[in-house]
Amino acid sequence: MNADIDFYFDFTSPYSYFAAWQIDALAEKHGRRARWRPFLLGVAQQVTGQGVLVEQPLKGDYSLLDMKRMARHLERPFAIPDPFPVRSLASSRAFYWLVDEDGALARQLALNIFTACFGEGKDTAQPETIAGIAAGLGVDREACLAAMSDQVVKDRLRDETEKAIERGVFGAPFFFIDDEPFWGSDRLEWMDKWLAIGGW
Amino acid sequence: MNADIDFYFDFTSPYSYFAAWQIDALAEKHGRRARWRPFLLGVAQQVTGQGVLVEQPLKGDYSLLDMKRMARHLERPFAIPDPFPVRSLASSRAFYWLVDEDGALARQLALNIFTACFGEGKDTAQPETIAGIAAGLGVDREACLAAMSDQVVKDRLRDETEKAIERGVFGAPFFFIDDEPFWGSDRLEWMDKWLAIGGW
Repeated sequence: MNADIDFYFDFTSPYSYFAAWQIDALAEKHGRRARWRPFLLGVAQQVTGQGVLVEQPLKGDYSLLDMKRMARHLERPFAIPDPFPVRSLASSRAFYWLVDEDGALARQLALNIFTACFGEGKDTAQPETIAGIAAGLGVDREACLAAMSDQVVKDRLRDETEKAIERGVFGAPFFFIDDEPFWGSDRLEWMDKWLAIGGW
Repeated sequence: MNADIDFYFDFTSPYSYFAAWQIDALAEKHGRRARWRPFLLGVAQQVTGQGVLVEQPLKGDYSLLDMKRMARHLERPFAIPDPFPVRSLASSRAFYWLVDEDGALARQLALNIFTACFGEGKDTAQPETIAGIAAGLGVDREACLAAMSDQVVKDRLRDETEKAIERGVFGAPFFFIDDEPFWGSDRLEWMDKWLAIGGW
């Protein structure tokens, strides 16, 4: 019962940004750890037939309002980057390049990418931007740039995305607690209850 | 600031069933009333390009699990009727036939339809079934049956659905508090906070 909590997210997802700032504290509260797993939401959306959230009629406008409201609720800075959606290939690859060697550093990189993108509205699509953020954490900029075009790293992201979809992940953020799936940052309160009482 | 809370729902929506049992208490807690407004979710889904939730790959299976979990969370009986989705034309028309004359009776009819459908798993698609549920509340069965095929009542439902979509309603349940939109039964806690502090 002390297995890691799986945290699937996409760097292009504002609701993942909100969850990223909460998941480690939630896990630690219950003596667990969060296992961060970026994946490519767009690939999952091809399976489900869902399009990009903010581009959907009616739902898109509401979602933007809801995101801004969630940011105020959580008292976090929030800006929609331009262009949006932001491509998340570079971010995700940089994360997987780092995570096995230094999980804490990879998580900090993820948080800093999220802050740049949705806290400050920066375009984080380009490998150079991601390498710059990594360099701010003491990571070698050139090695980071090289990693983002390394076939092994590319394959890792593709494999992680495939495995996520095989587990039923169709949106972001998405979580598993002991194989129980939770979709959306609005399920964090249920997860807190689930962890406290062992499910219901 | 004491305007009614608009509660848009579809009788075919399990999450609307869960919300229906909570909305009046929430409104009353804050000195408000809920204005119940059934609409045809399928028409809104044609605008957004969304399909039926439980038929979507991956998302459908998760949704069924999430609905059952919500029922246990709220300690409400829950069954998926067969066939599902249930057609909600008859239910919605019976509601609009009653609501102007006796709002409390219309709400009770709505709750009893929801209980039959999602509490007991009954097929509530047929006008005869709805007239039977209405008769249980003292409503004239034949008058109810006649109303469900009355062009005035049919037009009312179509108009209410069009007006809902014009306001931006794309899912169910959907709420407005002083023009602030909230989508989903998972937003009831935010609505409670919103009503308590007047927005944020």
